Formats: sequence, C-alpha cells, structure tokens
Amino acid sequence: MSFQDQARAAKAATGALRRLDRAGKDEALGLMAGRLRAATDRVLAANGEDLERGRAAGMPESLQDRLALTGERVEAMAAGLEALAGLPDPVGEVVRGWVTPQGVRIEQVRVPIGVIGIIYEARPNVTADAAGICLKSGNASLLRGSSSALESNRAVIAALRDGLVDAGLPVDAVNLVEGGHEITDEMMHARGLVDLLIPRGGAGLINAVVTGSSVPVIETGVGNCHLVVDSSADLAMAETIVLNAKTQRPSVCNALETVLVLSDVAGEAVPRLVGALAGAGVTVHGDERTASLDSRVVPAGEHEFEAEYLSLDLAMKVVDSLEEAIGHIARYGSGHSETIVTSSLEAARTFQESVDAAAVLVNCSSRFVDGGEFGFGAEIGISTQKTHARGPMGLQEMTSTSYRLNGNGQTRLG
Amino acid sequence: MSFQDQARAAKAATGALRRLDRAGKDEALGLMAGRLRAATDRVLAANGEDLERGRAAGMPESLQDRLALTGERVEAMAAGLEALAGLPDPVGEVVRGWVTPQGVRIEQVRVPIGVIGIIYEARPNVTADAAGICLKSGNASLLRGSSSALESNRAVIAALRDGLVDAGLPVDAVNLVEGGHEITDEMMHARGLVDLLIPRGGAGLINAVVTGSSVPVIETGVGNCHLVVDSSADLAMAETIVLNAKTQRPSVCNALETVLVLSDVAGEAVPRLVGALAGAGVTVHGDERTASLDSRVVPAGEHEFEAEYLSLDLAMKVVDSLEEAIGHIARYGSGHSETIVTSSLEAARTFQESVDAAAVLVNCSSRFVDGGEFGFGAEIGISTQKTHARGPMGLQEMTSTSYRLNGNGQTRLG
Repeated sequence: MSFQDQARAAKAATGALRRLDRAGKDEALGLMAGRLRAATDRVLAANGEDLERGRAAGMPESLQDRLALTGERVEAMAAGLEALAGLPDPVGEVVRGWVTPQGVRIEQVRVPIGVIGIIYEARPNVTADAAGICLKSGNASLLRGSSSALESNRAVIAALRDGLVDAGLPVDAVNLVEGGHEITDEMMHARGLVDLLIPRGGAGLINAVVTGSSVPVIETGVGNCHLVVDSSADLAMAETIVLNAKTQRPSVCNALETVLVLSDVAGEAVPRLVGALAGAGVTVHGDERTASLDSRVVPAGEHEFEAEYLSLDLAMKVVDSLEEAIGHIARYGSGHSETIVTSSLEAARTFQESVDAAAVLVNCSSRFVDGGEFGFGAEIGISTQKTHARGPMGLQEMTSTSYRLNGNGQTRLG
Repeated sequence: MSFQDQARAAKAATGALRRLDRAGKDEALGLMAGRLRAATDRVLAANGEDLERGRAAGMPESLQDRLALTGERVEAMAAGLEALAGLPDPVGEVVRGWVTPQGVRIEQVRVPIGVIGIIYEARPNVTADAAGICLKSGNASLLRGSSSALESNRAVIAALRDGLVDAGLPVDAVNLVEGGHEITDEMMHARGLVDLLIPRGGAGLINAVVTGSSVPVIETGVGNCHLVVDSSADLAMAETIVLNAKTQRPSVCNALETVLVLSDVAGEAVPRLVGALAGAGVTVHGDERTASLDSRVVPAGEHEFEAEYLSLDLAMKVVDSLEEAIGHIARYGSGHSETIVTSSLEAARTFQESVDAAAVLVNCSSRFVDGGEFGFGAEIGISTQKTHARGPMGLQEMTSTSYRLNGNGQTRLG
C-alpha cells in the first residue's frame, strides 16, 4: 500500500475512533495487550532478526541495547497498554463553557486531533506506547520507526492490529509506515491527511522534521538545562539537587548540563560542587573563574555552554548577578527546564517570571520534568516549542478542542 | 534595518514585555491610543498617498474601500486599543496546578509566546488591532502589511511607537516589516526569532504561508460552512437561520455556503428555503434533486460543493440520511463551522459528536462563530487547524504556558 493510501485509510478510521467511548477504548487496549503478550515469541524472533542484521552491519553496542527486546520488555509493553486503559479519557472534557447574552450555550470540548504521525528511532517499545497513547486519545496513528527495527515493529504492529480486530475496530487505526527516506518526506508534506507530526529521537531527526514539514509539528526533546546557585542558596541542597539532576540519568533531555554560580558564593560553592561531582564521576568543564577556584575543573570553551552533553560532563560558570544568569540562559538555553536553588523569595519570583522555558524550577531537580513524575500516566515526549503543548505531553496534549454551540433559533443581529 | 536585525530587536524586547504587569500594559495601550488619535491628520495624509498610488496602478474599487481610512476609522482604531486595556490579562492565569507525592508544587501558568509575526492584506486597521492584541498578551509583534498600504501602516506604527516611548517601553515591541517578497520568505523561516506566524487574508496568502513556513503557523480563515436541515427541523427556524447565516454578511468566513436537506422534508423545505433566499437576492445552486423541486434553482456542478462563494450564492443538495450529510461535510467541509437545524435530541448529539470542525452548531447561526460574539473582546482570526488554537482566537490563544515547579530540596528517586 502506498503511503497516501495508508494515510487515507488512517483518516477513514478516525470517524469510528472519534465516536468511541472510554469503555470501547479501554477494552481495545486490553485486547491489544493480550495479543501482544501472546505474540511474545514471534516478537522476540523478529527482534532477533533485526539484531542480527544490525550486528552484521556494525551497529554500535549502545544502539543494539536500545533495539534489543526481552520477554520482560514485551511484558512491559503489554502492561503499558493496560495502564493506559486505567487513565481517564481526555476526550469529551469540557474545557470551559458559557451562555451568550442571546442565550446560545457555548462549550469548548476536547476532541481527538485525527491522524497523528510519529517518527522515531530504534526502540521498538515506542511502537506499542505511541499506538496506545494515540488510541486512548481517539487518534489514528502512522508510526514511522527506523529501518533497523523493521521486523520487530512489524511483529508488534501485527499483534496490536489483531487486538483491534478482536475489539471490532478498524485495523487502520494503527499503522506502521514502511519504505525509504522518500516516505518520511511524504509524511512531512501530507497536508489534509496527517494532522500532527511528532518526531522522537536525536537532535538531527527532530531538526529535519521540524524545519522540513508543511504539516503541523511538535518539536520535542533537546534540553540544554541550567541550574543557578543563587547567593542565598542552601549549598547542601544545591549539591544534592545538582548531583541528582546530572547523574540520576545523564542521557535524557531533562538532565542538567550547565551550573551557573553567583560570584559571591563561588569561593565556597565551586569547590564543594566540583568535589561532589568528581566523586560521582562527573567531569566539570569550567570558565576561567571556575577553573581558578578548583584544580579539578577542565577549562571550557564558549561552545561548551551550547552543548547538550547527555553524559557525565557538566559546564560551570561564575556569574556576577542573577540578571547575568538569566541572560546566559536566554542565550544558551533550549527552553526545556531551568532551575534556581535559592532561599530568597524575591530571587525565586524574578527567576520564574523572567526565564522563558517549558519548566522553571525552584529548589528541586529538573529530572521531575517528565510525564510520569507529573502524574500524567503516559508521555509522548516533552515539547520545547511554545505552541499547542509545552513541556511533558500526556493524553490531554494529544487532543484538539471544538466549540459546541446550542441554541433554539438564535440569529446574529449586528 | 535588515529583517534579521529587526527580529532580533523584537526578541530583545520580549524580556521587558514578559515582566510587564497588567497595569503597565493597559497604560501603554492608552498612550498608544492617544498618540494615534493625535496623529489622525498624518495617518489620513499617508493613507491618501497609498490610495492615489493604488488608483494610478488600477486598484479595484473594492480594494480601495478596504484600504481607505477616515477620521472615524482612525478613531475606531484608537478606541479598539482602549477596549483592549479593559480586557483581563491572560498572562499569569494558572491553568491547573497540583502537588506531587514528594511535595513538589506544580503550576501550569499562561505566559507570552514571545515574538508573533502577522502577515496580512490591505486593511490598515489590522495594524493597530494586531499590535494591540500582541502587546496585551505580552508579545512583541512583527507586522507585515501589504505594500499597497505601506504609507498608512508607517504612519500608524510611528504613532503606536510614540505611545510605547511615552510608556517607557522598548519601541521594538511593535514593528512594521518592510521590503519585497523575499522578506516574507525570511519571516517564514526565522526559526528562533519568530515564535508564531499568523497569516490573515485570502486563501492564496494563507496557503502560501502555511505550506512554506518552517516556523510554527496558525492557519486561519477558509470557511466552507454547511447547514443540515434535519427531517425533524422546524422549517421556520431553518429558514430564519439559513437567511441570517447566508446574507447577514456574505463575505466572511463564518457565512453559510451549502445547505443539505434531508430527503423526507425536501419537498416542503427546498421550495420554502429557495423562495426565501431568492427574495433576499441569493442564487441557489442545486443538485438535480434540488433543481427538480424548484425551478428557481440553478443546476450545480460537483465543484460548487467545494466552493467558498463569499457572495450571495449558495449550494443546496438533497441527502437521504444524516449519515450522508455528515459524510458530505467530512468530504467538502473546511473544518470551520457546521450547523444542524433539528428538533431531535439524538440527531443533535450524533451531529455534534461526529462532525470534525472548529465549531459544531445546533439551531443557531454560524455567524455566531466569532471572537466578538464569543465575548472574547478581541480576535486575531479564526483558526481552522487542530493544534494550538481552534476556532476564534482571542487573547488567551496568543499565550503559551510554562510549568512552575516549587520544591524545598526534592530530588528524583527512581
């Protein structure tokens, strides 16, 4: 089937999804989970083929790790679908409502978006996760996984579609998009067929999709996250939060990348933080003033403040004022998650009102900026753009709204 | 100044706008209104130059009408700015908030988007209107008017910027973007400088901006709006609503374009509606069945169901079921405003749950789908896309949100 035909089939499935109530969706998710569990052997065999092909082609170990499935991982995918069934349905929520002077009742109601395209990299668990989130929010999905996971994705999608059949739903509600790079391009320009496109993966993929698409896109992911150690900071708290934000899981977008230390506490704070970080295996790349305060600091170039290390590396800089810190973040930040550690109410307020980011934190770890930690129960990614959704995107962010007007014959007068 | 420099200056102004409280914004709007009023003679002289140039170049009368300013129209622009000062500030609104199990307080708060680009056609009143809406929502604006209104727009912008100076705000909060077509192209690709681009104008302009931009865009405007006369409709109500929706202002996007009549009432409904419409000067273009019921009906081709007439013309078709009507709307509708006239609760529910549009109406006129009628007090356009904002866009739709997390030392455990 051509991509156009596939997208049209997905669009045709949106009518049924739009009218499906929560009970129908939850039943389908349960049946999809059951079919996926039952297909574990087939999925693992397919995954074995992908891994073998990858190894033969010299795939790096880290990518192999991300591609590899186990019985446990398949079980986790099935359990994830069942967990979605336990979440409230975002569709039908009345966002606001009022009555006009002429007596027309107006309600703004959450509705599905329609057809959502997702372009992602090697992890095959994203396939079940994204299909489930789209279904629960009433959307059809066009899932474009990477060619390195093709057999795994085919096996997962086949199981999920068996579940849709069991539920009496159109199989075209969930689709795997196959083919070469030209198909990605078609997806990016399928106006009228793809209502929203979400890239999940590295900066290169995201940038290509965001700049090249003519359909609406949500930019996810890149996080050059800062933490400011204010003059009034509790340094023990700063140390704990810096360590957690940097080392708890360094490879993710909400991990800390740069620490900015106010100069009047730098003499005490820099050696303390550098020592704690070194003890946790973190290399600190500092500007001249930082380096002059601790010999373990590796001198940093200006470009290191632009980097999203995603590793046990951290940039550090001494600044003379909160305003300078805020200016640095405005220049180098990616608009993801920005933190201040302070005991000053005024500094906290200034920071939260001045910094332009998806999340602005006071005295807690940027690792909390996550759909799971927010209690959303599901997350399709973290948006770093300012329109539609910003920050962790759960089921609600996978919806649009529609106004319902109910009258009894009103017409407009002027 | 190059466009890049201008956009950078606008971005630099966003810091001050972000921190401006409602009192500061309202004061600025009042001062801008005062300066615009005081500059009436200069604005009218500039407008005279534009008109003269237009006439010399053979500008059609209708465009001259839209371009022409009078003392009254300038006063209306000033009064519009003052009216914005009377509206609540959308920035700072807490959309939702909760506390995590570890005691981190999370609030989702409305914040300005940043720099908003608006590309629009001849009407110079849009200049003041758009600048005011952006300022009230805390955004800097890059206003790209048409070259035919250049002198008028320059005079209006100069007055507005004088008002900004009076208010002690950066003049770069409001900018007129001048230059050839290549500048529009630069605007459409100014990633990192333009946070949102909104085209206001005809279908050609909107389509070019929506398909050609790599910055986030909101699609506005095109309305191929339908009305279904259900089997159970009160035909007197149907007649009143059809007349109002078609003739009250035929040139706007929420005007009615196609009427679908259920076959079991067509024998009575079609002649009644065609008669009323003919009496109001409307030409009805009908399918074969409609034409067979009334000799005043002009036979319509299939393409007429795709048209947005924006004139005293209306397409009419007889359908055999509500499902057929819903299918016709799914195929031909532009997702703007779709209406049913019915006395059946079941038909109303089915229609509102099945039709995918910005507004779905029961027993009232599609002319109500408008920021003013919704009580928004201001409107930047009507979005027909499904992401960010859908339907009439007021001040709230000109904002983004940011999550504020407040802790007292919490770090993530798992």
